[in-house]
Amino acid sequence: MLEDTQGLHVVAQTPFAPDDTVDHDSIDTLTAFYHRHGAKGLLVLGVSGEAQTLTPDETVGVAAAYVAASNGRPVIAGVSSPNLALLAEVTAQVRAEGAAGVMISPPASVRTDEDLMAYFDAVFARIGDVPVVLQDFPASSGVKMSVPAMARLIGAFPQIAVVKEEDMPSARKVAALRATVPWPVRILTGNNGLYLPQELARGADGPMAGFSYPEMLSGVDRLMRFDNDVAGAHALFNRYLPLLKHEAQGAMGIALRKEVMRRRGALAHAAMRAPGGTLTAEDIAELDAILAHMDLPA
Amino acid sequence: MLEDTQGLHVVAQTPFAPDDTVDHDSIDTLTAFYHRHGAKGLLVLGVSGEAQTLTPDETVGVAAAYVAASNGRPVIAGVSSPNLALLAEVTAQVRAEGAAGVMISPPASVRTDEDLMAYFDAVFARIGDVPVVLQDFPASSGVKMSVPAMARLIGAFPQIAVVKEEDMPSARKVAALRATVPWPVRILTGNNGLYLPQELARGADGPMAGFSYPEMLSGVDRLMRFDNDVAGAHALFNRYLPLLKHEAQGAMGIALRKEVMRRRGALAHAAMRAPGGTLTAEDIAELDAILAHMDLPA
Amino acid sequence: MLEDTQGLHVVAQTPFAPDDTVDHDSIDTLTAFYHRHGAKGLLVLGVSGEAQTLTPDETVGVAAAYVAASNGRPVIAGVSSPNLALLAEVTAQVRAEGAAGVMISPPASVRTDEDLMAYFDAVFARIGDVPVVLQDFPASSGVKMSVPAMARLIGAFPQIAVVKEEDMPSARKVAALRATVPWPVRILTGNNGLYLPQELARGADGPMAGFSYPEMLSGVDRLMRFDNDVAGAHALFNRYLPLLKHEAQGAMGIALRKEVMRRRGALAHAAMRAPGGTLTAEDIAELDAILAHMDLPA
Amino acid sequence: MLEDTQGLHVVAQTPFAPDDTVDHDSIDTLTAFYHRHGAKGLLVLGVSGEAQTLTPDETVGVAAAYVAASNGRPVIAGVSSPNLALLAEVTAQVRAEGAAGVMISPPASVRTDEDLMAYFDAVFARIGDVPVVLQDFPASSGVKMSVPAMARLIGAFPQIAVVKEEDMPSARKVAALRATVPWPVRILTGNNGLYLPQELARGADGPMAGFSYPEMLSGVDRLMRFDNDVAGAHALFNRYLPLLKHEAQGAMGIALRKEVMRRRGALAHAAMRAPGGTLTAEDIAELDAILAHMDLPA
Repeated sequence: MLEDTQGLHVVAQTPFAPDDTVDHDSIDTLTAFYHRHGAKGLLVLGVSGEAQTLTPDETVGVAAAYVAASNGRPVIAGVSSPNLALLAEVTAQVRAEGAAGVMISPPASVRTDEDLMAYFDAVFARIGDVPVVLQDFPASSGVKMSVPAMARLIGAFPQIAVVKEEDMPSARKVAALRATVPWPVRILTGNNGLYLPQELARGADGPMAGFSYPEMLSGVDRLMRFDNDVAGAHALFNRYLPLLKHEAQGAMGIALRKEVMRRRGALAHAAMRAPGGTLTAEDIAELDAILAHMDLPA
Repeated sequence: MLEDTQGLHVVAQTPFAPDDTVDHDSIDTLTAFYHRHGAKGLLVLGVSGEAQTLTPDETVGVAAAYVAASNGRPVIAGVSSPNLALLAEVTAQVRAEGAAGVMISPPASVRTDEDLMAYFDAVFARIGDVPVVLQDFPASSGVKMSVPAMARLIGAFPQIAVVKEEDMPSARKVAALRATVPWPVRILTGNNGLYLPQELARGADGPMAGFSYPEMLSGVDRLMRFDNDVAGAHALFNRYLPLLKHEAQGAMGIALRKEVMRRRGALAHAAMRAPGGTLTAEDIAELDAILAHMDLPA
Repeated sequence: MLEDTQGLHVVAQTPFAPDDTVDHDSIDTLTAFYHRHGAKGLLVLGVSGEAQTLTPDETVGVAAAYVAASNGRPVIAGVSSPNLALLAEVTAQVRAEGAAGVMISPPASVRTDEDLMAYFDAVFARIGDVPVVLQDFPASSGVKMSVPAMARLIGAFPQIAVVKEEDMPSARKVAALRATVPWPVRILTGNNGLYLPQELARGADGPMAGFSYPEMLSGVDRLMRFDNDVAGAHALFNRYLPLLKHEAQGAMGIALRKEVMRRRGALAHAAMRAPGGTLTAEDIAELDAILAHMDLPA
Repeated sequence: MLEDTQGLHVVAQTPFAPDDTVDHDSIDTLTAFYHRHGAKGLLVLGVSGEAQTLTPDETVGVAAAYVAASNGRPVIAGVSSPNLALLAEVTAQVRAEGAAGVMISPPASVRTDEDLMAYFDAVFARIGDVPVVLQDFPASSGVKMSVPAMARLIGAFPQIAVVKEEDMPSARKVAALRATVPWPVRILTGNNGLYLPQELARGADGPMAGFSYPEMLSGVDRLMRFDNDVAGAHALFNRYLPLLKHEAQGAMGIALRKEVMRRRGALAHAAMRAPGGTLTAEDIAELDAILAHMDLPA
């Protein structure tokens, strides 16, 4: 079901209202914003979707709202958890709401190739035949997977249809994975899109990342994969790079991204739910300086 | 409400039936077993209570069942989670079911004294005036708290009524805490009870630990704290030490503890829920050898 | 002695000959290259100086060679080690060779504010009155230091004359440190210079970083701190950003940096000593593509 | 050369004089003490040998002194280091002084099976044909090795003649290794000897551990492996268990072990070199209480 996963898949924000509840109206405007700027699909409830601040009910509600707003375009939901029972329950619930698949990163307790295989054995015994995006992001998960280990895992579990590859250096790992893991497994890349031109040149099928100007991500993807316009891709990427890099600063980066998207009308309120990042006056001035000295389209 | 927390508080098991559901009948027999062997209260849903294998509904169900079986003796529920919204929701639910308090260990994202204070600020903003046991167990949590940091935390949040101290070397830390943190804050100790005589000699108020012979834990506590019979306490402790140490082996240790308690009639089935430990024939033979060469009462 | 530490301090490479020995001739050309492009001083034997591949004798030899080539400009030597006796011995030796000071990052065994203070107590008891750069780089050291803890440390040990600040988000931490730690303690910033304009705007005294075009680092520093030309600084920074970011990829990034500097004539051979990074034909092609699509001066 | 490695190999202490220099006289008495109580060989310069407080010259000096005192019985030297050049240099030096082999634990940078193989490739490229004890101690190294990965490693490098197995639960891992790795590779066990009877029952070739009563370790080994007296082995082990467990408390445990051995005349001074553990009056009283309530031979 996820075999056709290519092109930009935006890592979506979770918007909150001033009263700290989930802002469902902004889910509609965000979804339209993402799609208007080239998203083929969405990844919701990732780390930068503030999943760790939502109750299970809110979690399922956010997934359902994004599915409803997406008009048939795919929505993949992050469900990683150290608690396998919770992972399985949330998986079943978001699938019932229409999620096309789920994204899973192994928990920090996985420390060897054998642990990795055993973990996903247990996962699939519980969730069954659900299409899965395997997230490879050691900087966040603490789990380092070698390419041979990933290949064995993917060979054993055909439900793994996509890899979100964000182990560094990512372009090299994309190339090594692509040489080892056969189609139709897809490889998308994350890491805030910081190495997107290189990743696409080495065989990635598109970005799965968040950025306040998603049109850059979809544009670079198109220029590299379809138009064969490497110079154009680099030029587009480099133009946005100062902001892209500025958003790649953990929780503060998410707060900055929400603020820029608020200014662009994509959501009503930039607030993150505690304990997320908040922006000071200095942070805002710093953001304004970066934007002022970039060469952004009007 | 937890100010009188002293004496043995058993870290309770979660029993499962052969069909992998929670075995509520065995919760009744376990509770009676724990109380019969000297428990003043129970700590349910800790790591060795296999909390990470339960759905949120099952979690609350286990807490409610232990409360119902306890006839008014206190039940404290472990609610630690990297997800603060989930922690708060489960806290409210177990409190509604009658839990006397909750136990919280800071998440691995807490890395400085400032992080620690900020984390519990966020926790109490959400859960309100709930009595809390602060768990200090770096080997599991990854969070190391200094005694001054713990004292500042406890000074700032009077809801913290008890510390479960299991940082190594634990007896030294109990003494340092006791010299710094004023009454009525209570200090119980865990770490499978492996250093219980020393911890009690240095000022601990009792064990909060699991063992298949809880009468040893309550006996040592009584001999040390009330009868001033150090020789008797050491003799009792040393007699059980080979098995105590054998149960202190992570997931396999929990499986062994369940098996011994099954043999003692405390629960119907020794099974752990996946991905918990299972015992092989060699593991059973090894357990039998240890039991055979101890000098246990008939 | 390090009180005047400001402006660009280049994190220097260690050059190797084809026979895998240290290439002392290239130390001379590298030093001239760094100074020609604006370095006020050098930091040698850091992680990107491949210190972990050198024997103690080679370590001291590299420091001595950089001092000899520097004609009186300061050389600071990285001496961090989990072995305190080795740290002290190397400190004495590089000081005897003329190093202006040493840089120390706490070892991973430091986990609380108290540990931190005790560690530097032990350090200074052994090394005495040596000027020290305190490196704050949790992504590499595993040690997170809060601003209050750093301030207490600096207050207790006047030998700490400089902080190399590279905890993320770094600009925020520079501002918080600057507001807390009084002059004349200097704050330089690392992290490959990726957030240099923001760090300088928030009070940093210059970069302590490596880049194959050090003239960008010194130029941005001058434009921000002396010429008050924020627009010029951003323009200069953004022009080099695609390569700056590409070099920020761990061991592969060091290999890329050496390759670009080899092309610029700064050293004779780009090789890293094993187990350092090696570049494949694809890596070289990728580097060429990045360089081709930047707007670099001839 | 290490193929006959079986029976007790004591993890030796490094003794210090009151002036903080290495106490070479006590190396002689310690060696005699270890051999008199059943040691077939020694492991020097391990973590509990305070290797991290010695300079490279002291390191080699300690190894040489133990070799000289051992009258031909084997001495194996711990040489683990994140710095491969240092590891290789120390290996060559201790071999020149007569060490029978070296013990190596992989550094924390090893995170996958592929990393593990690459690391030892680099090690053996540098140290050549030196007999090696592979230490498997994740609680200290941070590196978890699966049994298949260890088997591949041992298959690739015949220099690995012995495994020091101390991953928990250790008895299970000994059995799995023994079933996978063919003779003549030997398996010794560490972890302070806490699970020695079980490890020997599952196929270990003896303990490689430290304890202030090494005659217990050699006695249990003999009773289990040669006399087939399981009851006798358990009885002997259980008699000493309260102290064995008390010494298993990190740096404080090493200090306690030195103190007991000082009382037994094995070394002249119990001091550890900073930043090692020091004992307070309460620690001494605690030790005395444990000893008083055990049933030790006169």
